[in-house]
Amino acid sequence: MATGDVKLLGAWASPFAMRPRIALNLKNVDYKYLEQNLGGKDELLLKSNPVHKKVPVMIHKDKPICESLVIVQYIDEAFTSGPSILPSDSYDRAIARFWAAYIDDKWCASLFSIARAKTDEEKATAVGGVTTGLGLLEQAFKKLSKGKGFFGGETIGYIDIALGSYLGWLRAAETLAGSKYIDETTTPNLTVWAERFCSDAAVQDLMPESEKLLDFAKMLLSGKFDPPK
Amino acid sequence: MATGDVKLLGAWASPFAMRPRIALNLKNVDYKYLEQNLGGKDELLLKSNPVHKKVPVMIHKDKPICESLVIVQYIDEAFTSGPSILPSDSYDRAIARFWAAYIDDKWCASLFSIARAKTDEEKATAVGGVTTGLGLLEQAFKKLSKGKGFFGGETIGYIDIALGSYLGWLRAAETLAGSKYIDETTTPNLTVWAERFCSDAAVQDLMPESEKLLDFAKMLLSGKFDPPK
Repeated sequence: MATGDVKLLGAWASPFAMRPRIALNLKNVDYKYLEQNLGGKDELLLKSNPVHKKVPVMIHKDKPICESLVIVQYIDEAFTSGPSILPSDSYDRAIARFWAAYIDDKWCASLFSIARAKTDEEKATAVGGVTTGLGLLEQAFKKLSKGKGFFGGETIGYIDIALGSYLGWLRAAETLAGSKYIDETTTPNLTVWAERFCSDAAVQDLMPESEKLLDFAKMLLSGKFDPPK
Repeated sequence: MATGDVKLLGAWASPFAMRPRIALNLKNVDYKYLEQNLGGKDELLLKSNPVHKKVPVMIHKDKPICESLVIVQYIDEAFTSGPSILPSDSYDRAIARFWAAYIDDKWCASLFSIARAKTDEEKATAVGGVTTGLGLLEQAFKKLSKGKGFFGGETIGYIDIALGSYLGWLRAAETLAGSKYIDETTTPNLTVWAERFCSDAAVQDLMPESEKLLDFAKMLLSGKFDPPK
């Protein structure tokens, strides 16, 4: 569906900015993508998101919507084209929101803490948080996917978007650490899921190149940048 | 509406546990309230919320739902009795979700940082965060309430619940600091709103007594407790 009245302010390395783009692809909504310079702040970004001054921002019919998961829910509700992103049942919807909140509030904090850890103990705690979280998500996947390919069932849903958007960063973290966080032994379902997610038509052109992301991650670690959010 | 199949695991001092209780009151849903001992963890709590092991948990038809704002949204969707808590328009709903996320992710962090601050500078930063946030919320109120009594219009809505549940703690923080964060000069609309919110039939019996909360806050500050969440 072509709308012509959707703009998306994003940044290539931001997992959060990837989320509404995946949702718009799933809904077959055409949109104008405006890559933002993470080092500076464009006037449109400051005007559209004066509270956080961060990507992503979606502008629909000249009205801005901010915060990645808020935007994804809005896209699901405002565009009836394409599959539903959140489940239709209210209890299932609550479970999807629970896991998405877990991913952003708890798991993501551990992921970004790995790079920021100043001592071996801090690093071990962060790595432990990531692997424990992936263990919980592996269990959740088995329960929620019901033998299908995604947390959302046959197609990419809300939890898939929430977790999948971090896969580029997770891989960068794996490369830096020299070990896998998602692997066939401890998280066999997530291993297959991650490959399926990244090769989905709605995602494949949005996942950042590993090398480029790794260079960017190293720049972040050098202290020249705040992590994107 | 009597359901008989709703249980709510909460704790009197928790702003988060207050939220689903307000929502259930607004929807006229009878429920069994199970006060939890914050010092220990009951078996039902551990079983119902194995990920966070925290209140609130709502159990509906034997199925648990966790995370306060997830529960409030579930209540709004599952019970058609009483007024809608989230707006009916998808854009307005996105705005309500945005402000609720702001309150929990940013503003609340400043509020709880006041008590935890170890230096005058840290305290000034935390107080600055609280007052800046209240300034933003004062502006948001003017825009969203459209001259009515609540963020949600004529009745208590999603942002009202998200922010209002902190009023007991905000008042405790004001008493400890000896100064007002919500006052008639800087936040005249929020001042009137706070009184209206606390005296609403759905809220008045849930707001903790100031003295009791202050004693509890002092106990938290003494390091004998983690803050409830």
